[in-house]
Amino acid sequence: MACLPLCFSTGELHAATFATKGPAGFSDDELARLRQLLRPLARVTEIFALRRTAQNLLDTYVGHHTGARILSGRIMKGDLETLRAVLWFSDLRGFTELSQRLAPAQVIATLNELFDCQVPAIEAQGGEVLKFMGDGLLAIFPFDDEASIGAACKRALVAAQTARAKVSERNERAATAIHFGVALHVGEVAYGNVGGASRLDFTCIGSAVNLAARLEGLTGKLGRVLVISEALAAHIDEPLDELGTFELKGVREAVRVFSPCSTPEGPRSLR
Amino acid sequence: MACLPLCFSTGELHAATFATKGPAGFSDDELARLRQLLRPLARVTEIFALRRTAQNLLDTYVGHHTGARILSGRIMKGDLETLRAVLWFSDLRGFTELSQRLAPAQVIATLNELFDCQVPAIEAQGGEVLKFMGDGLLAIFPFDDEASIGAACKRALVAAQTARAKVSERNERAATAIHFGVALHVGEVAYGNVGGASRLDFTCIGSAVNLAARLEGLTGKLGRVLVISEALAAHIDEPLDELGTFELKGVREAVRVFSPCSTPEGPRSLR
Repeated sequence: MACLPLCFSTGELHAATFATKGPAGFSDDELARLRQLLRPLARVTEIFALRRTAQNLLDTYVGHHTGARILSGRIMKGDLETLRAVLWFSDLRGFTELSQRLAPAQVIATLNELFDCQVPAIEAQGGEVLKFMGDGLLAIFPFDDEASIGAACKRALVAAQTARAKVSERNERAATAIHFGVALHVGEVAYGNVGGASRLDFTCIGSAVNLAARLEGLTGKLGRVLVISEALAAHIDEPLDELGTFELKGVREAVRVFSPCSTPEGPRSLR
Repeated sequence: MACLPLCFSTGELHAATFATKGPAGFSDDELARLRQLLRPLARVTEIFALRRTAQNLLDTYVGHHTGARILSGRIMKGDLETLRAVLWFSDLRGFTELSQRLAPAQVIATLNELFDCQVPAIEAQGGEVLKFMGDGLLAIFPFDDEASIGAACKRALVAAQTARAKVSERNERAATAIHFGVALHVGEVAYGNVGGASRLDFTCIGSAVNLAARLEGLTGKLGRVLVISEALAAHIDEPLDELGTFELKGVREAVRVFSPCSTPEGPRSLR
């Protein structure tokens, strides 16, 4: 085996390894020829590495779906993508109080523990995180057609139950418990590119997003980690508790609210 | 002059132009030698183009300062940067009502008009937009040491007055007026990296950020486009109106609130 240097245009030093099946290893002549390849090979590998870096950064900071659209040049300021999806809105209860009590580094660490309980659970069920907003998280579980709404609702519910279990596990290990709430709804999200000059971002708007956020605001009052809108409940075949009908700010009609029967918020599921 | 093709590794076709001072242009021999350069030149220019693209995308979607730190690999999940700066918090008044009344595309267009009035004004005065949050915008005007606080406060005030003038101009042209509010404060911002799995974002926390956001919430009630905290007012030498002392949610002590005398919110400055 031979390990030879690949020098990138920035001066960063990487390496390429070559293996041979020849019992005597590489001959001097073969090594000389490999060395001749190194400069063009360094250029090509640098291109691949940069392309992967750009994709990874966008996946990480704007999300996979949107990142791919940006990189292919398909996004212009003011562009709007509208899609129907299952919506997930969650946040940390008592965040204002917590952020006054803890040092900033502890606040960030707590948020990361909370997001670590949620994001893998969401992604494992085919969901995509659209936005982090302070302690809040907005995710979608897209579906292709009306026939697959039920499956998407089911996946979102599984993700919420997994996240709740992860938070419980975390609280059993931790000195201070954290409490979160999740609302699930199904409806239309408009995902738009906004900003000014050279600074842009994505924002999610639509009455369904507002409904999901307001619904999540009920979790504490109702004593449930997980609440479900009537629109989503229609697609769930497991038994649900009906928690009442509520007026929500910015939502025209009162909303019937449900929760899975298996999620009474006892001390254990809360902790 | 010669224009020759540069073929990138993706198959994208770009071009390189070459000029000569020779009165007869390039000879056949020179052209043949330029052609020999094209393949290695394409690799190198592709590297430069990708590096610039990655930097531009991060500048655009996470901001210049943070983008540079990410690209150099200096950011890890949970990292926290704390800095003292002048804080700018602004939003659109009546956004919930507006987003119910208008179609999503119009909401996005309105937000972009509002941000176009603010972002260039902020950047022209050395400010940096940290976050867009729906209709909200959080920016900072950093300063190096205590001796330069006054200058940073002054720059933020100029930016706010420019943005207000831009919104007025926009309203004179437009069928429907938009109204925004800006609060300026000076204090500490903790800018942290949060997220879960492969999805990350930045969030701003700290009591100064909360104070600025709550202060901005007073603009409508006080009938002023621009309000200033006592901490910032101490660094401004132009005459200010004192608007009163207010209790703000999540802020321990009541806050004295000021506004420049030149900003009574008459019909013209509002429109």
